[in-house]
Amino acid sequence: MKDIFDRVDFILLKTPDPNFFYFTKVEGAWEGSYAIVFSDAIEIIAPPLERGKANFYKSREEMERLLGDIARGEKIGFNASSLSIADHRHLKKLLGGKWIDVGKELSEMRLVKGREEITLIKKACRETERIIHNIPMEGKKEVEVAAEIEYEMRRRGMKPAFDTIVAFGKNTAFPHHIPGRKGHVMPVIVDAGAKYRNYCSDITKSFVGRKGKGIYELVEHALGIALDEMREGVKASYVVKKVEDFFKKHGYGMRHALGHSIGIEVHDGFSLTPKSDFVLKENMVFAVEPAIYENSMGVRIEKDVIVKKNGVEIIR
Amino acid sequence: MKDIFDRVDFILLKTPDPNFFYFTKVEGAWEGSYAIVFSDAIEIIAPPLERGKANFYKSREEMERLLGDIARGEKIGFNASSLSIADHRHLKKLLGGKWIDVGKELSEMRLVKGREEITLIKKACRETERIIHNIPMEGKKEVEVAAEIEYEMRRRGMKPAFDTIVAFGKNTAFPHHIPGRKGHVMPVIVDAGAKYRNYCSDITKSFVGRKGKGIYELVEHALGIALDEMREGVKASYVVKKVEDFFKKHGYGMRHALGHSIGIEVHDGFSLTPKSDFVLKENMVFAVEPAIYENSMGVRIEKDVIVKKNGVEIIR
Repeated sequence: MKDIFDRVDFILLKTPDPNFFYFTKVEGAWEGSYAIVFSDAIEIIAPPLERGKANFYKSREEMERLLGDIARGEKIGFNASSLSIADHRHLKKLLGGKWIDVGKELSEMRLVKGREEITLIKKACRETERIIHNIPMEGKKEVEVAAEIEYEMRRRGMKPAFDTIVAFGKNTAFPHHIPGRKGHVMPVIVDAGAKYRNYCSDITKSFVGRKGKGIYELVEHALGIALDEMREGVKASYVVKKVEDFFKKHGYGMRHALGHSIGIEVHDGFSLTPKSDFVLKENMVFAVEPAIYENSMGVRIEKDVIVKKNGVEIIR
Repeated sequence: MKDIFDRVDFILLKTPDPNFFYFTKVEGAWEGSYAIVFSDAIEIIAPPLERGKANFYKSREEMERLLGDIARGEKIGFNASSLSIADHRHLKKLLGGKWIDVGKELSEMRLVKGREEITLIKKACRETERIIHNIPMEGKKEVEVAAEIEYEMRRRGMKPAFDTIVAFGKNTAFPHHIPGRKGHVMPVIVDAGAKYRNYCSDITKSFVGRKGKGIYELVEHALGIALDEMREGVKASYVVKKVEDFFKKHGYGMRHALGHSIGIEVHDGFSLTPKSDFVLKENMVFAVEPAIYENSMGVRIEKDVIVKKNGVEIIR
């Protein structure tokens, strides 16, 4: 952060940029809202629909006037990965100044979590695991199970971080299966995440009959390899390659990334792939999700972990 | 559409652009996916997580190769309101060509709905209205009611189009109240929308005790004025001004827009405000939501309507 403010006078963020929520800590959608982040203060400019401390505007003119008053400075930091071309054009014309893309730095900063962030993620993980664990599935359709999981999240003051995946039988072969009318049958994949005060969990459980046992054990073993290798100082790609080698040895390939950072977004900016050249650091938080997909079934096991000096802490 | 293809060879769209879903009709998030829309064909490029007809890529290199192969042409249409600066920079470098912003035309095109779109919106509206109507609220907390509404949507194969608002008592004074632990008490606002096969509903019901009756009747009257004035050929701002005048006469002002177009997005691009200079056309679909907010309570009534030649069809 300090480094960023050596280069810019302030950072201008517009929803739905996750950095907006990182700095402001407000909840909700805050459509059409801006955060102006100074090194020692934050101002929000928003339409008069939200609740909280903000500079509210009722018209485009008022919004532009507030931006002009508050966003004063020559060097304006922004996030090129989120800001649209149209918004950028509009803001540049309005505020002038020199625009400096700090998106990568912000994303890297968010990768290492603070104590409060970890508390929120842990809560989201614990509740999600408990909900999946306790949900009755027999005799139910995929959509019904997904609906019940999300209902339980809502009742606990959280919300789904993404559309819950419930796949029965052959549907487990599709990583992003959309729950349908299919009734409960083995194997089963449930992939669910909750958002608690802006922070996400992402957990997958697979259940298999006798037929899927061998594959399940392979995936479980792969997960063990990943968690054994993860610790501060290790290159992300190294972990992925270890798992890849293991799968290859058994005749399987990886269909998707081994995992991803979680935080304000469920895919919070960094993936674990053979090309990930970043180095793991203490208090990074990842969802690790090795999987095998065959033609007629799939198994995926996903756990959320915190990187520590000498290994990982498995949250759930 | 025809006009657009006079100006561009194809349109390149990247999720989460609503136009991606308009053209492809696929459901789900399709993170990291592209649609290349020609005048007579559509191609999707996507990571290998989704189900459906697409060109799947497993690495960034493969994605770039597919884009290079499929997105051939000199004049490339894109949506500046959705594409990020970083993506634009990357794609421009990769594909070369002349980039032409067609976002406004696409948005205008989506404003007038086709028959199939109207069928989907109607279904979403009917179900949403039925769910709100049937939800028991007495003795419950706001979060519980919100959870049950979204559960019912899910069970019916739909999903929430936005976070359901349930506000009891004083919380009705906040248009975007986030449901909390407050128990049922009058007045009540429930604002919910469902997404059914990519198309949204947006419905608000208010319930008041004896105290709120006067305000409720004013808001209901304001809704009547809006619906009476809406028809093909009428300027949107004219409708808004009629409602505004009515509120002013009774000592009230409008806190937010009178309404907005609905479609693939719940705020689908066009708002009904005093400055809306577009003209209503047959088969535009709007959520109309006059409201009064006082210090300790609010009333909002929101209905979804289809503009017709000589008036509106109230869906729900």
